[in-house]
This record gives sequence, structure tokens and C-alpha cells, in this order.
Amino acid sequence: MDARFLDSPRDRMVDAAIAGMRTCGLAGAGINQVIAASGAPKGSLYHYFPGGKLELAREALERFGETRQQELQTVLAGDGPPDQKIARLFKRAAKGMAQEDFRYGCAVAGVTLDLDEDSAALGPVCSGLLDSWTQTLAVLFEPLPAARRKALARFVITAFEGALVQARAARSTQPLLEAGELAGSLVRAQLQPS
Amino acid sequence: MDARFLDSPRDRMVDAAIAGMRTCGLAGAGINQVIAASGAPKGSLYHYFPGGKLELAREALERFGETRQQELQTVLAGDGPPDQKIARLFKRAAKGMAQEDFRYGCAVAGVTLDLDEDSAALGPVCSGLLDSWTQTLAVLFEPLPAARRKALARFVITAFEGALVQARAARSTQPLLEAGELAGSLVRAQLQPS
Repeated sequence: MDARFLDSPRDRMVDAAIAGMRTCGLAGAGINQVIAASGAPKGSLYHYFPGGKLELAREALERFGETRQQELQTVLAGDGPPDQKIARLFKRAAKGMAQEDFRYGCAVAGVTLDLDEDSAALGPVCSGLLDSWTQTLAVLFEPLPAARRKALARFVITAFEGALVQARAARSTQPLLEAGELAGSLVRAQLQPS
Repeated sequence: MDARFLDSPRDRMVDAAIAGMRTCGLAGAGINQVIAASGAPKGSLYHYFPGGKLELAREALERFGETRQQELQTVLAGDGPPDQKIARLFKRAAKGMAQEDFRYGCAVAGVTLDLDEDSAALGPVCSGLLDSWTQTLAVLFEPLPAARRKALARFVITAFEGALVQARAARSTQPLLEAGELAGSLVRAQLQPS
């Protein structure tokens, strides 16, 4: 992120789009919503984002993805074996969900489940972010062959995304905590020398 | 479902709301979208659904949930051990996603990731459907104690929802097929007498 843009109108628009996508997907990152939430002067959105809503959404997704990537790296840099790090990742998300009163989800999942003809260009952006998280996580499973490492990492991200949906619907941290334990036990089993 | 309503304008509105929610969540089940997609006469929506958009969405979610419940029961009634049934459930979803060109997701996840203050009443509906699928699936794990059975079933639904998100973003069946294999291997391990 370029420091010049911190707290600039442009920056506030991106943050408003992220919050909107985390609340209700692409519908939350509409031009009117972003203008209202960011307090930016009306008409300035096309000045900063000549490509309009999709350009703003793309940048918001990328900034969101970068934040998540850093959180993931923080957890992976911690102590303990891989299964404990996985459980910690889910625990941390559970804590965040509860603190935010279960009002926010993953912006990438929110946008993915809103993709239609008009927004199809955002599909590869969402897919690319899921892949980048997968690659970061796959480093944890280094003893495994590359294909199995990637499949296992993707499965952990899959469980993470699914657990965020379940936790939000139930307004409960339980699905995330259980998923962290079970994904951790799968990781432990997969890493055991056979 | 009451047979009187088949192909009635009311019935078509519910189906249009389901298709809309599967495409882009709650935003796809707005009154204008449903009227346009169902071909129902304008103004008839409040005649059939005096509670408006939320009443229509609730009924659409319940009908969608019932369809998914029946598909789940069909897979569970098939041959083979639990892990094979789980893998088959994911394979079947992968086939469906590819046939529909990755344009549709799960209506329950789509709505869950759109919940805000105005639509909060739909949270318990989504959560209730996820729970009912979990209970149906938990029967597969009968040898386990009730709490572990339920946690394992919920985890399979969690992985299923997450894999639908990944498959749609990547426009690929691979995340679903891999998730079916890995969830199956976890189930196999959990069911092994320790």
C-alpha cells in the first residue's frame, strides 16, 4: 500500500468497499454505498477509479487479500507443529468474528458468491487471492510432495472459508473452533510418515 | 411443497428467488429481480408474500434447503462405507457446478454472506438449514459419541460450503474433488477404532 494514500479520500473509498464486501459482498461495494460510507465527495469515485465499481472492487479485494496474507504469515511464524498453527489460525478468526459481533465475513467469499456476467472479471482476482493464501500455507507442509502439499493447504483454506460461513449463520464461534481442531487432526495424520 | 402451487405465479417467484440467491445472494432475490425473472405480474409479490422480500427469501431458502436435504439423503442411501459416500457427495456437486458453468452456488451461503441489520431475521433460517443437513449427515457416523458425530458432520458441511466457494472462484471442479477426498480420509480416520 502506498503511504501517500493513507486517509486520503481514495483510501477511504477502498476501505469502505472492503467493509461493504465483508458485510454483503459486491452489493456492499456499490458506488452509492461507498460514497456514503467513505464520506468522499460525490462524483469523486470516477476521478479516483476511472474503471468505476469493478476497478474499486478489484483494488479493495487486493488490499483485503494482502491484510489476510500478513495475518496468515504472523500465525505461521508462531511456535509449535503445523496442526497447532492451523488450530490457532481458526481460533484467531473465531475471536475476530465474536469481537465484530459476527457481522463481517471474508470479502473474497462474499464477492465470489455474487459473481454474475457483469462482475465475472473479479473471479480471477478472487481465485488468485485464494491461491496466494494456499501457497503461503503450503510451506507448512514441506515434507509432503508438492501436489499433496498444495491440495492439503487448499483444503485448509476451504475449511476456513466454510467455517466463516457457518459461524456467521449461527452467530457462534463453535464451527470455527471445531473446524480448526479437525483440520489440524487431518494435517497431523497427513504429515505422519506412512 | 403444496402441489397446488406448482407453476403458479407464486411458485415461479420462489424459484426465481432461489436462482437469484444462488447467483448473487440476497441481492439476487430483490423484488424487481424476482418480478422480472418470474414473469409474474408487477404488484403481485405483496399479494402472495405480504411480508415482502424477507418472507419470499425465507420460503425460497426453505425450499432450497429441502431440495438439498433430499439430494443428501439420496447420496447417503447409496452403497459403500461413509468415506466413499462423502467423496461421492462432493463429486456430485462438482459435476453439477461444471454443468451449470460455475454460475451458481449454495443459496444458504450466498444469503449468509449478505446478512445485515435489515436481513438479520434470515440468519436463524440459514443456520437452521445448515443444522438440518448436519443432522442428516451425522447418521453416517453412528459409532461415534453424539457430540463427535455432530462435530464431524458439521465439518463435512463446512468443507462442502468452502469448496463450493473455491470451485466457483477458480471455475474448476478440483477444489471440490480434493475436498471430498480429504474430508473422506478424515472421516475414515475418525471412525477407526482407536
